[in-house]
Parts: sequence; C-alpha cells; structure tokens
Amino acid sequence: MDQTPYIVIDEKILVKNIRKMSRLAIMNKVNLRPHIKTHKIPHIAKLQLAEGAVGITVAKISEAKVMASYGINDIFIAYPIVSGAKAREICVLNKKISKLIVGVDSIDGARVLNEYANKYNQTIKVRLEIDTGLERTGVGFQEALVLAKTINQLEFLSLEGIFTFKGPVYKGKATKDVQKAGREEGELMVEVATKLRNAGIRVEDISVGSTPTASSAATVDGITEIRPGTYVFNDAMQVNLGVSEWGDCAAKVVSTVVSRPSDKRAVIDGGSKTFATDVQPNCAPLYLLGFGSIQQYPKAQFARMNEEHGVIMTNGSTLKIGEKLSIIPNHICSTINLHNYVYLKRGENDYEKLTVEARGMVQ
Amino acid sequence: MDQTPYIVIDEKILVKNIRKMSRLAIMNKVNLRPHIKTHKIPHIAKLQLAEGAVGITVAKISEAKVMASYGINDIFIAYPIVSGAKAREICVLNKKISKLIVGVDSIDGARVLNEYANKYNQTIKVRLEIDTGLERTGVGFQEALVLAKTINQLEFLSLEGIFTFKGPVYKGKATKDVQKAGREEGELMVEVATKLRNAGIRVEDISVGSTPTASSAATVDGITEIRPGTYVFNDAMQVNLGVSEWGDCAAKVVSTVVSRPSDKRAVIDGGSKTFATDVQPNCAPLYLLGFGSIQQYPKAQFARMNEEHGVIMTNGSTLKIGEKLSIIPNHICSTINLHNYVYLKRGENDYEKLTVEARGMVQ
Repeated sequence: MDQTPYIVIDEKILVKNIRKMSRLAIMNKVNLRPHIKTHKIPHIAKLQLAEGAVGITVAKISEAKVMASYGINDIFIAYPIVSGAKAREICVLNKKISKLIVGVDSIDGARVLNEYANKYNQTIKVRLEIDTGLERTGVGFQEALVLAKTINQLEFLSLEGIFTFKGPVYKGKATKDVQKAGREEGELMVEVATKLRNAGIRVEDISVGSTPTASSAATVDGITEIRPGTYVFNDAMQVNLGVSEWGDCAAKVVSTVVSRPSDKRAVIDGGSKTFATDVQPNCAPLYLLGFGSIQQYPKAQFARMNEEHGVIMTNGSTLKIGEKLSIIPNHICSTINLHNYVYLKRGENDYEKLTVEARGMVQ
Repeated sequence: MDQTPYIVIDEKILVKNIRKMSRLAIMNKVNLRPHIKTHKIPHIAKLQLAEGAVGITVAKISEAKVMASYGINDIFIAYPIVSGAKAREICVLNKKISKLIVGVDSIDGARVLNEYANKYNQTIKVRLEIDTGLERTGVGFQEALVLAKTINQLEFLSLEGIFTFKGPVYKGKATKDVQKAGREEGELMVEVATKLRNAGIRVEDISVGSTPTASSAATVDGITEIRPGTYVFNDAMQVNLGVSEWGDCAAKVVSTVVSRPSDKRAVIDGGSKTFATDVQPNCAPLYLLGFGSIQQYPKAQFARMNEEHGVIMTNGSTLKIGEKLSIIPNHICSTINLHNYVYLKRGENDYEKLTVEARGMVQ
C-alpha cells in the first residue's frame, strides 16, 4: 500500500451509501438494480445484492460474464446487442444464469437476438430502450409503439418492459436541477408505458434512474425499477449536483507530491492514467474547479494533467514533496476503470486489496 | 476478434514507424530511447530495441518492472522518485538489470535515493530534469546548477546528465510549429549543459524529445538522446501537428454501430472507457474535430461520449447498425492504456493477440 497512486474505498461510507439507496427503493416500492460500471468489483456487487438489490445492471456482455462467474444470477445488460457474435454470447449466458435481460432499440438488433434465440432454442428477455432526452441510444415516443409491436411478433423474444437513461437532463438540456430531471424522466416513461399498454402490449418493467435522478424518478407512480451506479462511491460531480456531500464520497485517490518546481505549483504522481478526464473542469452546467477535490488542501486546485503527472496550483497551500494527498475525482466510474485494484479500508490499518475484475471489459 | 470494441495494430505501419525513428536517430548521431508509455507491450519494446534503440524510457517503476521481467535491461525512469518505498524498489531493480537511470528534480528526491543506495550498497545513476517551458516537473535554469552540485556531493548517486520533456511548446506556449519547439528544446538543454560543464559538472547525457519535437531537437549540436513515444502508432493529434499522415497511424479502434436513433445520429459501442478523453476536441492550438477520426466516413464527426457509448453526428453518412468502424483516436497512448489487449495484424486474416502488460501500471 505504500506505492502511490492508488484508490482507497472507505467501507463504512460504502455500506452507508448502499443502504441509503436500498431504503430509497423500499420507501418508493421500486426494485433496485444498481449499475456495476461504477465499481466493476464482484465483492461490491454482492454487497449491493445482500442489501436488497434485485439484480445488477451492466453495459457490456464481458462485464456480465465476469459478474456471472462470481455467482451473480440476475443481470440486465442495458445496452443494444446487434451483432451475431454478441447474440451468441447472450444465448450462452442466458443458459448459465437464472435471469438475463437485454436492451433493444432497433428492429435490426431485435431480429439478430431473435435469430440466435431460435438457433439456441431459448427465449431472450428484452427491454425496449426509450430516449427521454439524453439523445444517446433509445427510440423516441413515436417509434416506441412500432418497435414494441415488432418485438412482440418475434417468437423467441419476450418483451418485459422499457428502460431509459437520462441523467441530469431536463427538457433535453443539461441541468443541475436533478429533482426536475428525475420527475420528468419518470413521467415520460410512464407515459410511454401507458401508450404501449393501451395498444395491448405488456409492459412489466419501467426502469429508470441514475444516481442524481433516482430519488425523484422513483417517486413517480408506475416506475418499477431504478438503476443508479455512482451512489456506491459518489464523486466531485455528485457533490456539485447536490446529490451527496463530501463525507459521502467513499472512494479517494491517494497520490504523492513528487515535485515542487515553484511556489505556485506542485506535481503529483497521478495524471490522466490515474484520474479520469471524461468529466472536464469548467464546463456547463457544473463548472467543476479542477480534476478532483484535494481533501487536505481545499484551496489548492488540480489544474491540469499529463499521462502520469498532475499539476496542482497551490494557491498558497504548503504541499511538501513526499506528502500524500487524498483526492476525490470528478468522475469515479471512469477513474476506477483505470486501476487494476483498489484498497478497501475496513478499519484503521485494516485494508483489503480488491481486484477491479471487470476493468477494461468493454466488449 | 469478433467482439468489438478492440484495437488493431497494423504491423507493417508499426515497423515502418519504428525504423523511420531509428534512422532519424542514426542520421543525427543521437541515441534513441523510446518511451514505452504509448504501447506498454514488451513485444513492441523489443521491436524498438531490435531496430536500434539503446534502451527504453518509462514513467513509473511498475512499468519498468514489467519490461524488466521480459528481459529488457536498459531502462530510464524519467520520473522523480521521492519516497523511501519507491527508492527501495529502485535499488532492487538496479541490481536486476544492467543499466537503470532515474529522474531527479529536487534535493529531497536526491537525498532519498542516496539514502537507499547507501543502505543497499550501490550507486544509482540519475539524470537531472530541466523544465524547458512545459511547466510540469523539472527545475529552472537557476536551480539546475545548485541542484547538480548537491547531487554531485551525494556519495551514492552518479549524475549522468540532464533530461527534459517539452512537447509542442514554444516560449512557454502550446504551438503547432513543432520545428521551432524542437529547436528551442534542444538549444535550451545544450545551454544548461554548458553552464553545468563550465562549473565542472560532468554532463554525459543530454536527453530530449517527444514524437513531435524529436526530429528538430535531434539536429541541435550536443544533444545525445531522444525519447519519443507516440511515433510507434501515431494518432489524430500527431496528424494534426503535421508530424505524421493518416497512413502512418498504426493503431485503430474497431467499434460497431449499435444504434441509429435518428438520421443525424449514430451510436457506437465505444465510449470514454474505450477512447481516451485527455485530448479533448476543439481546444487550442489543435482544434481537433471530435474524439477520433472515422476512417470509413471522413465527414462523420465523433461528437461526444459517455462511458460505453460514442455518439457520432453522421453529417449525411450512411452508417448502418452492425457496421464496424475503424477509428484513429486523438491520443493513442492513453487509449491503449484503457485496453487489456490489442490485436497485432501481421497480414490478411493473420492476427496475434497481445496483452497490454503494463496497462494500469501507474505506481
């Protein structure tokens, strides 16, 4: 543990975060199916399940396979599967675990899945992805009915419901008003479900929710499931959104000051291969102040990075060469993915090294 | 190989790039000590050595250990080592391989290395890092002489020379004029070396050069070594800098179109966990047009990403669901680091899977 940089996860905060989201789900009578993209660690997925999650969500089949290999039996791959090669993998996994659900957002994707389900003599459970304003994957309201009808005609697919990912977006624009964003997300999805049901289509699951929008989306009547991910750790982005406090951040990157080239500048041994750069500072609507929040020196600013160097503007702080800093990154999900392992802090001087088993599993 | 996204390295282009840089070094009578941060793959490091590199450069000890475990015996860790824990590792590695050189840019760092070298009964070769305008690590011209004298008084350190990393920076500002940037880099370093030599300090190595500045820095009289990294693969950034052509880009990310939610938009199965985000589009001085260059559809723009989704504005291109795209990323070094393996393309339908052995080695 003496070789920086590395990530430390505070187990107490982690468990508190997991329980808080579980309570939120229970209070709102929705299922909790957390997205494991944040941690990619089977041990933490199992903690989530032990605390009441009904199953897990992943983006990629390779992530699902890792989790399944650790005995996790109920997995939603919230991602469109469109190739034969991947449809084949889906069929293999479908036989192995007790419940597998797969995302669909196109006729092409649905047909490929149906073809392979037929070939492998099985039924694949699918959910139709709806675009509720993020403009990523998912179909619009008009196409939803057409596609749902088509899927229902495919013999080897079972349409279970609909899902969406929106995040802190309101009326198609990024927002810091996560309550409004979440309400809108929930309401739009219930609206789609109603439309489908009125056309005679069975919609069992209405699945929504990111960490910022889960608490409000879950309150919308008709929502059956939330899929937050980041809440297990939280990060500078979530704090800035008002979703968590600094004290709720379970994951910190420990990095050492390796150079003090000037009074103004300190350099740490973590750069863009240690801290994610997908959430950049100084962008609307968050305007984050740097690449992470330095716990010991709130005035110092994590201003820029190269691959292995982090440049900190000290703003008068006395960072010494050799000093270890604890830094809460802007985006913990993509930061964890850079690391081969993390240290789970169970107590004073009690650390367990956990491998980030699904790290790099992008297939 | 049918599961996207993945990286393909074209061996012919790779070897051509390696040989070109080797020739450049020979022509300018400088040593070539490539930085392996770009590929992190022992097989490619060995190709570089077989084609004339005198040794390799790494940033971190953990990278050096991986390379040493594959029999690479001459390694420069171009990074300040300041902790006892790492100094101990340096001593262990120093005994294992035939030549190890370590970066120093502070008295604190030098003293720690000296203390451990003494403890382990050995001499550690060091190079003093000079800041030639990037304002990262490295000492200024004034401090260089003081620090060099101090290092020379430390019994268990052997000061071999000086090194710098500047990249495409001229007079302290980012530039696209890489020739000017490289000349300045070389000239500043020779100036420092002269100053040190005039004070009676031995300066054997004057080590400079990134991929963009190597060709001009190497021409400066007195320079003894260049340390480019990216040249093995090249990327959108290097093409934009005029350092390479698209045809010189050996590494491409293959990603599948998984969704066509609208005429304007296509979504691929690679996001910020597949393509690096440290070199952002639309920033001075490069103003890159997106997160990578789509080889099949030059008009289409790789506009934004989430973790596992890449959103492409089609601009009229007919991207079909299921279609595989070859994309040259903005920054290949940090992109390779996201992947557990790459495919080395030796010929038509002849691929070898190579593990990115030093991936995630940030310690």
